[in-house]
Amino acid sequence: MSEESGQHFSRRGAIAAFAATAGAAATGGALVAGGREAAPAPRPARAGARLEPFHGAHQAGITTAQQRYALFAAFNLETTHPVKGERLSTEQTVAAFRRLTEGWTVAAERLTRGLPPGPMPFARPEVPADSGVADDLEPSRLTVTFGLGPDLFERIGREGARPRRLTPIPGFRGDRLEKAWSGGELFVQVCGDDLQTVSRAFRTLRSRAPGLARLQWSQQGFLGAFGDATPRNLFGHPDGTTNPRVGTAEFDRAVWSDADEPAWFSGGTYLVFRKIRMNLPKWDTSTALTQDRTIGRRRSDGAPLSGGHEFSEPDFGKKGPDGEPLILADSHVALVRDVPMLRRSYNYDYGFQGNREPVADHHHGKDADHDHGDDMPVHSGGGHDAYDSGLLFCAYMSDPGEFVRTQRKLAESDRLNAFIEHTGSAVFAIPPGMRPGENLADALLSAT
Amino acid sequence: MSEESGQHFSRRGAIAAFAATAGAAATGGALVAGGREAAPAPRPARAGARLEPFHGAHQAGITTAQQRYALFAAFNLETTHPVKGERLSTEQTVAAFRRLTEGWTVAAERLTRGLPPGPMPFARPEVPADSGVADDLEPSRLTVTFGLGPDLFERIGREGARPRRLTPIPGFRGDRLEKAWSGGELFVQVCGDDLQTVSRAFRTLRSRAPGLARLQWSQQGFLGAFGDATPRNLFGHPDGTTNPRVGTAEFDRAVWSDADEPAWFSGGTYLVFRKIRMNLPKWDTSTALTQDRTIGRRRSDGAPLSGGHEFSEPDFGKKGPDGEPLILADSHVALVRDVPMLRRSYNYDYGFQGNREPVADHHHGKDADHDHGDDMPVHSGGGHDAYDSGLLFCAYMSDPGEFVRTQRKLAESDRLNAFIEHTGSAVFAIPPGMRPGENLADALLSAT
Repeated sequence: MSEESGQHFSRRGAIAAFAATAGAAATGGALVAGGREAAPAPRPARAGARLEPFHGAHQAGITTAQQRYALFAAFNLETTHPVKGERLSTEQTVAAFRRLTEGWTVAAERLTRGLPPGPMPFARPEVPADSGVADDLEPSRLTVTFGLGPDLFERIGREGARPRRLTPIPGFRGDRLEKAWSGGELFVQVCGDDLQTVSRAFRTLRSRAPGLARLQWSQQGFLGAFGDATPRNLFGHPDGTTNPRVGTAEFDRAVWSDADEPAWFSGGTYLVFRKIRMNLPKWDTSTALTQDRTIGRRRSDGAPLSGGHEFSEPDFGKKGPDGEPLILADSHVALVRDVPMLRRSYNYDYGFQGNREPVADHHHGKDADHDHGDDMPVHSGGGHDAYDSGLLFCAYMSDPGEFVRTQRKLAESDRLNAFIEHTGSAVFAIPPGMRPGENLADALLSAT
Repeated sequence: MSEESGQHFSRRGAIAAFAATAGAAATGGALVAGGREAAPAPRPARAGARLEPFHGAHQAGITTAQQRYALFAAFNLETTHPVKGERLSTEQTVAAFRRLTEGWTVAAERLTRGLPPGPMPFARPEVPADSGVADDLEPSRLTVTFGLGPDLFERIGREGARPRRLTPIPGFRGDRLEKAWSGGELFVQVCGDDLQTVSRAFRTLRSRAPGLARLQWSQQGFLGAFGDATPRNLFGHPDGTTNPRVGTAEFDRAVWSDADEPAWFSGGTYLVFRKIRMNLPKWDTSTALTQDRTIGRRRSDGAPLSGGHEFSEPDFGKKGPDGEPLILADSHVALVRDVPMLRRSYNYDYGFQGNREPVADHHHGKDADHDHGDDMPVHSGGGHDAYDSGLLFCAYMSDPGEFVRTQRKLAESDRLNAFIEHTGSAVFAIPPGMRPGENLADALLSAT
């Protein structure tokens, strides 16, 4: 099965999708409209369904109150012809980009409204238009947010339209980045309150990619049902306390693109994504004092160690009886103060990532590895011992340089570094929102 | 970090835990009581908290209405002394088993009631007793269910107490089992409606294992918010339609242990666990007719192809106009008819399992693998293309032999085999429920 299950495609579909890009490039938005006509009659969302609007000045999934589940993924455009193997020209790549973003826009808009996604492109008519996986499920505040990576603009011959602040995140001291979840030309964030609708939405988006783009990585996160309280991360601390409030001038400055950006990017933003692995055993066996001093806040209620409550301004000058600052200068809070960004992070717990060794004789009872005492000492790590959990750090900001400057400081001296490890990194320009009938790539591709 | 983050322990804790097992073996349940006394004063669960009872004739998490999230994991007892490296005697192994199950029982009972788990064993007093991750979260119908694998009984010198039907599941044609999620001596199922409380509960259980047992595998699944409807699996079909109804004689026969089992096992059951990978792209590009004939049911409403509604009895003799049976003899439904078991399966979507290659120069934008056209053909699979999603098949039954007999038939001729692949397998005896003050191992260890 592994030959076919990796990416979402049929050979027929992949070739047809690619072949169709020439027409798509010529007709512009026509395929979007066509897709809509061919779709089954809209099934109105049920009364009480919780919907997030897809259209607007900004994309959904940014100012949206955080949903319980998130899926993040990056794709790269195909570089060669699916049959001939020839390297694609820039024009062919643009056509593929247009076709893909059209398919994604239509599917995302319909799914977030609680409608079926429309027909699978280039599938035989007898093939169901939808997987049925979310039949009887509400959209549960589903949002889909798209982004464009630094390398995309050269690929599609639009270097001149590249947002000014879109450059790869540099490496930092202590980074342990893995290709498996770093970088990418096209980005998708799917959020919602029902994991099954999130999974189904991403499956639909994948099914639009064959022949056009290839999945590079995906990551999934969750938040507990914290209601109006700030969600807690896996170190037990509230995460996102200092976020600017939506609708304030401070928020707009921190998040939405500056005036010096290309006109098509007005209303856009940037996303910095970091996969941060947490050493939970080490944290859990540290004292409360160490934990709180590392963060600079009290875990129980999130108040700064200088006093007050969660939302009190930290007093970095305030000293304790020993003459030392209550909030240590190398605590996490002291180093990240006043960074203008909207944190929208999720926890992840991927469990135990064991070896994928086949069971030799199909008799696993006998094969179970009981006798690992010798070759697998208690205190060793390695693949067999890898428990992977932590934080999918997501921050929207008008200038990713703010992240870079802060992370450089953190990488040098943050006390938290003893407990965490950055294993993934990516940055994307998040285009502005769309009007009905418009697709993700329209503004960019019509920019001169 | 990988040296320490794999398993949940501190070196100090691991050694102390092991050393304490001698005392634990002598004093029996004393540590349970001790753990309770040392815990912080119980914090009553809030009004409206949804709790599932921990105590009873049967363990929770079996007849419990299926929660939204599940985590499954298996551990093996340590085989060697954490410091000296000597092979453990049977007496030492029993002591470790007792100590571990005491820790687990106390923590599970407290967490399901919405209380903190009690102090981390052998931690310094300054170490917080709990991670704080679920502060302000309700238990959300948390349940913890424990099981014992076939090899455990010899390990603890209790071959005579082994449930009669507990033997390893044999290999079947087409199996692609991997050690990474097969077998195991001790089993834990954690279910709940909040993924963060499930994650935290499992973290607590892990923290009780160092020095005593080692995590072998973990798996996580979900269900959409289907309410009273049968949940749909990732093929879009309702899954669990033919389950016996709780409280009927049919259910009791299908699930609870037979009269010929050892007395201590009365009220127990067996769990068969299979990790079943689904080829979603292949399924999604198959026609509706192929999909429905493969299952023998109509996807839209789950009705058998012989007619009626979801819960209508399939008529395997009924023929269509072409003289062929409406439900094909090699459809999934025709082959699994009348198997007495309680299916309690969960969907899984682990996303894209990419290569874990390090980013070479910490400049991931540049390193992103754009030029994979030549060495990574569009239609190939392999690690780089591996999207892992499917079903965590869980079935409780009084006789796992029923599963084996059915699976043998399925492995030979089920039409579904074209779309699925079994990659994990395990079977466990699920001990009966506990009374207050009792721990998981008491009944077994007091059996002669």
